[in-house]
Amino acid sequence: MAKSVKIVNENMEIEWSDDIPGIQSHKSTIPLEQLSSSPNSLRRLREGQKPITWNSGYLNRQMPKLRFDYNQYINDSEILHQVTSGIRAWGIVFLTSVPETEDVVENIAGRIGTVRMTFYGKTWNVKSVHEAKNVAYTDRYLGLHQDLLYMENPPGIQILHCLKNSCKGGHSLFSDAFRAAAQLPAHDFNILSKGQVAYHYQKDGEHFLHSHPVLEVGSSDQTDTGGVRVPLAVNYSPPFQAPFFMAPRDVNKRKLVYSLGKFAQKSEEPQNVFKYKLRPGECVIFNNRRILHGREAFESQKGERWLKGCYLDTDVFTSRSRVVYDSVVNMGEGPNRIRRMSYGRSASVL
Amino acid sequence: MAKSVKIVNENMEIEWSDDIPGIQSHKSTIPLEQLSSSPNSLRRLREGQKPITWNSGYLNRQMPKLRFDYNQYINDSEILHQVTSGIRAWGIVFLTSVPETEDVVENIAGRIGTVRMTFYGKTWNVKSVHEAKNVAYTDRYLGLHQDLLYMENPPGIQILHCLKNSCKGGHSLFSDAFRAAAQLPAHDFNILSKGQVAYHYQKDGEHFLHSHPVLEVGSSDQTDTGGVRVPLAVNYSPPFQAPFFMAPRDVNKRKLVYSLGKFAQKSEEPQNVFKYKLRPGECVIFNNRRILHGREAFESQKGERWLKGCYLDTDVFTSRSRVVYDSVVNMGEGPNRIRRMSYGRSASVL
Repeated sequence: MAKSVKIVNENMEIEWSDDIPGIQSHKSTIPLEQLSSSPNSLRRLREGQKPITWNSGYLNRQMPKLRFDYNQYINDSEILHQVTSGIRAWGIVFLTSVPETEDVVENIAGRIGTVRMTFYGKTWNVKSVHEAKNVAYTDRYLGLHQDLLYMENPPGIQILHCLKNSCKGGHSLFSDAFRAAAQLPAHDFNILSKGQVAYHYQKDGEHFLHSHPVLEVGSSDQTDTGGVRVPLAVNYSPPFQAPFFMAPRDVNKRKLVYSLGKFAQKSEEPQNVFKYKLRPGECVIFNNRRILHGREAFESQKGERWLKGCYLDTDVFTSRSRVVYDSVVNMGEGPNRIRRMSYGRSASVL
Repeated sequence: MAKSVKIVNENMEIEWSDDIPGIQSHKSTIPLEQLSSSPNSLRRLREGQKPITWNSGYLNRQMPKLRFDYNQYINDSEILHQVTSGIRAWGIVFLTSVPETEDVVENIAGRIGTVRMTFYGKTWNVKSVHEAKNVAYTDRYLGLHQDLLYMENPPGIQILHCLKNSCKGGHSLFSDAFRAAAQLPAHDFNILSKGQVAYHYQKDGEHFLHSHPVLEVGSSDQTDTGGVRVPLAVNYSPPFQAPFFMAPRDVNKRKLVYSLGKFAQKSEEPQNVFKYKLRPGECVIFNNRRILHGREAFESQKGERWLKGCYLDTDVFTSRSRVVYDSVVNMGEGPNRIRRMSYGRSASVL
C-alpha cells in the first residue's frame, strides 16, 4: 500500500508499506517523463536509432566510421557505444588491430555480454581443410544466408574474427536484407511477411525444425531513415531450408515461392552485395537477423584461411546497448533512473 | 537440377546435378509421407503430445509416474523419452536419487542439451543467507512467478536441484498457468492474449526490458487433452513487472489490469497450487513458459536450504525431445529419415 506520494524535482516518490510480507517499507522513485510513456515510446525516445539501409557503394563510403580499434572498444565506453549504435543503424561494424590469438573472440563478445552457447560450442572454427567431409570446410563458394534459423530463437549477433586469410580469394559477402525487402513491391513484401518457410537441421543427435515468416513485421510499421518500410527481422537461409513451405490459407504457395525468388534476386544483385576480404587482426560484428552473409571461393592449395566465430543473443545485446547509451548519452544518470525493490541477482526465487 | 527422380519403397529419391557450384551430384531421399505434410502437421503427427492441465490433487495422484530415477534418466534413453514426454504433457517432472554434489545439475541439463547461459551464470544458487541484501536470499514467502520474462527469449526449461532443505517450511509452490488460463471466461482469455505486460530488470550493468502478452496464442488453437483452449505459453511475473502496461488500441488498460487480476486469483487458488518440499537428492524440471513457481517462508535460524539451478532453451529441449522420440518410438529409424546434403557442424559457412 502507498504510505505517501510526493513530487520531488522531476520524479514521483512513492513510499510503500507492507506490500511484501515481512518487509515494512520501501520507496520507488519514478521519473515523471516515464509515467507518460509506454515501453515502446520509451524505447524510441531513448534508443531511437532507425536502421539505415545500404547497398555496397553506400556501405563502402561509411567504412571509415564503421571501423573501430579493438583496444578502444575494450577500454572506452564511448567507443563501445559507437559500436552498438553502429550495429543498430547499419547492422554491421568492423574491429581492427585485434590480437591474433584464438580466444580473443570471447573477449570481443564478453565486452557486450554472455556468449550464446549452442551445440556448436561457445566458439567455433571456420577453416579450410583438405579432403573436407562437409561443404563448410571446403574452399567453395557459399551463397548468402543467415545462421541457425532452424531455431525459434536464432542468435541476434554474429562475430567473426579473422586469424588467417592468405589464400587467393575467400572474400566475405554481406547483403542488407532490409534493403532487399524495402526494394520489393508491396505485394511481395506482404506475402513474405505472411507465408512461412521452414528450416531444419537433423544430424548427430540433434533435430531442429522451425518455420518463420521470411519478413518479420510488428504490429506497427518500422521504417528506415529514408522513411521506407523495413521488417523487424529477416529469415532467409537456403542451405537449411526444409523441403516444404508453410502458408496460411490466404497465401498461395506458388506466390510465396515466387516472392521468395524475387527477394533472393534483390539481395544477390551485385550492387547490393558488399564484398570484403577480412585480414588477420580484423573482426566483423553483424546483426544475424538482418545481414545475409556468404563467402567467395578461394584457392586452398596455397595458404590458410581461419575464422573464429561466436554468437550473442538479441536480449544480451539490447541490454548492454541500453546501458552504454545511458552512461554515455545521459552521462551516468541512466542506470539509476528507475529504482525498485531489489530482487537480487538470483534469477529464481523459488 | 534434378537428374533423376525415382520412387524406392516409401521414399522419393532425387539425384541432383550441379546445383551447388563445384559439387557435381548428390542424392536426396524424402519419405513420401513427408511430402504430404507441413512441418506443423508433421509435428502433431510425430510428437503429438497435448498438454494435460492439472490442479494440485490431480498432479499429486500422477506423482508416481512423474518421478524418475537419476541413474536411469542418465543411462536409459527410454527413461529420457518418458522425462521429455512428461514435461511436454504435464509441464513438470521430478528426479530422485540424484547425487548431492554441486555440479550434478549440469549433468542433468547436459543430458538434454546445451545449458542456457545467462548473466546469472551457467548455474546459480538459491540459498538462505543471514543478513541478506536481497529478498531472494531471505527466508520470506515468494509468490508465484516465472523467470526472465524481461527477456524476449525467456528460457523454456528450469531445473532446480535440492542440496539442502533442513529448515522448517520452505515448501516449493507450483501452479499450472495453462489450467488457470483455461478456467478464465473467454472474455478475459481474449484480453490477456492481446494486451501486453512489460517486465524489466535494471541493475549492475544490465537493463533488460521486454513486453509480452500474458497469454501467447498461435494462429490456430491449442487445446489440452480435455479439449479446453489453452495458450502456447504464459508470461506472468509480478516481481519484475514494469510500472506500465501496453495495450493495443482495442484493449482497455483497466480491463487488462482487471483480467490480469482474475488470472492471478485463479493461479493462486489453493486447489491449483501444488505444494511440495524438495528433499536433498531430488530435482524438479519444469516448463518455465507454463508452470508458475514460488516458495513458502521458512525458518532459517535452524538448518540450511540450498537449491542449485540452471536453464535450457526451448529450442534445445525440443530438438532432444524429437530425437529421443524417434529413437524410442520409431526404434532408431528416425534420425536418418531425411537425408540431405551435409553442411557440417559449423554453424557459419562464411
